[in-house]
Amino acid sequence: MENRTLRVFKTMSYREKPNSEELAFGRTFTDHMFVMDYSDAEGWHDAKIVPYEPLKIDPAAMVFHYGQSVFEGLKAYLNPQGEPLLFRPRKNIARLNRSNERLCIPTLDEDFLLHALKQLIYIEKEWIPKADGTSLYIRPMIISTEPFLGVAPSKEYKLVIILSPVGAYYKEGINPIKIAVENDFVRAVRGGTGEAKTGGNYASSLKAQEVAGKEGYSQVLWLDGVEKRYIEEVGSMNVFFKIGDEVVTPELNGSILSGITRSSVIQLLKHWGISVRESKITIDELYQEYQKGNVEEVFGSGTAAVISPIGQLDWNDHKMFFNNGQTGKLSKELYETLTGIQYGRLNDPFNWIEKVATQQTMNKVG
Amino acid sequence: MENRTLRVFKTMSYREKPNSEELAFGRTFTDHMFVMDYSDAEGWHDAKIVPYEPLKIDPAAMVFHYGQSVFEGLKAYLNPQGEPLLFRPRKNIARLNRSNERLCIPTLDEDFLLHALKQLIYIEKEWIPKADGTSLYIRPMIISTEPFLGVAPSKEYKLVIILSPVGAYYKEGINPIKIAVENDFVRAVRGGTGEAKTGGNYASSLKAQEVAGKEGYSQVLWLDGVEKRYIEEVGSMNVFFKIGDEVVTPELNGSILSGITRSSVIQLLKHWGISVRESKITIDELYQEYQKGNVEEVFGSGTAAVISPIGQLDWNDHKMFFNNGQTGKLSKELYETLTGIQYGRLNDPFNWIEKVATQQTMNKVG
Repeated sequence: MENRTLRVFKTMSYREKPNSEELAFGRTFTDHMFVMDYSDAEGWHDAKIVPYEPLKIDPAAMVFHYGQSVFEGLKAYLNPQGEPLLFRPRKNIARLNRSNERLCIPTLDEDFLLHALKQLIYIEKEWIPKADGTSLYIRPMIISTEPFLGVAPSKEYKLVIILSPVGAYYKEGINPIKIAVENDFVRAVRGGTGEAKTGGNYASSLKAQEVAGKEGYSQVLWLDGVEKRYIEEVGSMNVFFKIGDEVVTPELNGSILSGITRSSVIQLLKHWGISVRESKITIDELYQEYQKGNVEEVFGSGTAAVISPIGQLDWNDHKMFFNNGQTGKLSKELYETLTGIQYGRLNDPFNWIEKVATQQTMNKVG
Repeated sequence: MENRTLRVFKTMSYREKPNSEELAFGRTFTDHMFVMDYSDAEGWHDAKIVPYEPLKIDPAAMVFHYGQSVFEGLKAYLNPQGEPLLFRPRKNIARLNRSNERLCIPTLDEDFLLHALKQLIYIEKEWIPKADGTSLYIRPMIISTEPFLGVAPSKEYKLVIILSPVGAYYKEGINPIKIAVENDFVRAVRGGTGEAKTGGNYASSLKAQEVAGKEGYSQVLWLDGVEKRYIEEVGSMNVFFKIGDEVVTPELNGSILSGITRSSVIQLLKHWGISVRESKITIDELYQEYQKGNVEEVFGSGTAAVISPIGQLDWNDHKMFFNNGQTGKLSKELYETLTGIQYGRLNDPFNWIEKVATQQTMNKVG
């Protein structure tokens, strides 16, 4: 069995914390990180919290060559009492293990990883920014580290959790974005790695994003890789359409990421008595409904933005405008409710929130 | 313009060279490596040959998270006079740049990179093993190093070339392999990254390989991601079928890697007056030809094995056996001719070989 000891080695040189008002996304990192190693002989072992510093990795490490890696993304928030909260962290850890299985990476003890994550957040709690809409972004990742050039699953891995204080996503209020349907490039295909959170999916998406960005679009809408008709995701978010009284979102099919915000949106809508349909939906079908005047709101869902309203969707020469380019009523309610729960301002009827205890017992302090 | 200076910093502690007879693939590395950095401000700069050592990379470096990386694979051989030879290195460097374009990585000056590679080989020439069939494997790679968690092309990169002495691929003579047609998993799809040499393609292939390996197969034969009918590649090799008097190989379609051994096989066959057809070929079509007794030889092509004869191909319940499970005459001739040219034992009618000068002028020796 794995060694479950978690050692802590505190930094000798604390970094200056940035001004909450000036925070961007993913550029500033905290004083400490969590690391844990895997070898075939020892399993996952040597769990420790150490000062944030560069990793020393052999240039032959497999991650550089064959991309065997997975990651997660979640956030810690401060409630009005100043206590750190996590939003559904077990869902992220469970998804990390599902990604591991697809990428042939050894799975983790989920309880231990949550324990380690909470310890890290506890130690870094002063790094959770306090300004409105800010949070501490949490990035667990696993990389293959065996120095070997054969194409095979690595026999050594490193798990790292780093933390980054991030600014409010909507500094000047929610602003609907403009999206283009992607016709040439494909993000993922059934039988591929689309539902895993692995680097290759993101690497392959960069080109389409670059082309669309030059044409003035924020993101692309991905169609399925086989028929190029079925709507899959938007940028790196899941996507929802309010068509008449019903909300439609593409069903999970193996090439779509199973978003935790997606799952929360669905649960919340059902709780509100709104009909939600998870099914296949083609771009043609969407356009037909649009022409009939039935598409009332469109939005993306993800950890970074929570809810990202889509004001315009261009499909070749067809331009679709939703809700006059304004944030819809439902999008706004979802955003307010989800962020309200995340920041502990609203009641949490689904037990989505996990508190990080403000007094923790360390196994050993180095 | 880029800074083209190449500095050399020799190691203070030379490693012991392994016994040529005991070499495996990709586990031993030489004393030095080539590194070069990219930043938006300086372009590709700070080219240097340094002692082989771990890279120090920020845990937020984009390669760990979003898989933006490319690589190449080629070999240096010793000719009977003991001079180092490279086989078509300009093709690898050109392909590296094509991979760069797909992955939004800044392209390289191809002449300078070849110059740098030759300098590295010159410095490490004692590492090229001398035993029959051995060689020095060359692995250039580029990784995205900007410490940033946004999904966007990195603004910083590191190019590294490492060298690994490798043993003879066929220690006990060529042995035909057993392959299974992959029905569930997909390696690549049109509009994806299949024709780029990037980590994600290899990461996504591991699971299928693992499943097939447990069932006793060496590799899988990949079908296209859309119709799951068209033959694409076998494992990480291109594939050829001798059907009657003609040799057929899948045409390059965007999801198939443009192999340099593949291109050399085609050129050699044409030179010999053998008809070669690059076209779509379905697994059904292959099976029909097999049933008619027309499929005489099947083989993979790649840098590692050069030619890898396939003795058995299983497609669901259909088992196909080629050339009685023996290495075919054409496979053997291709293998002997290609390796003969690579090791400088045979005439090189196509100017495929580049010599590494045995006296080089260094720009500066550190």
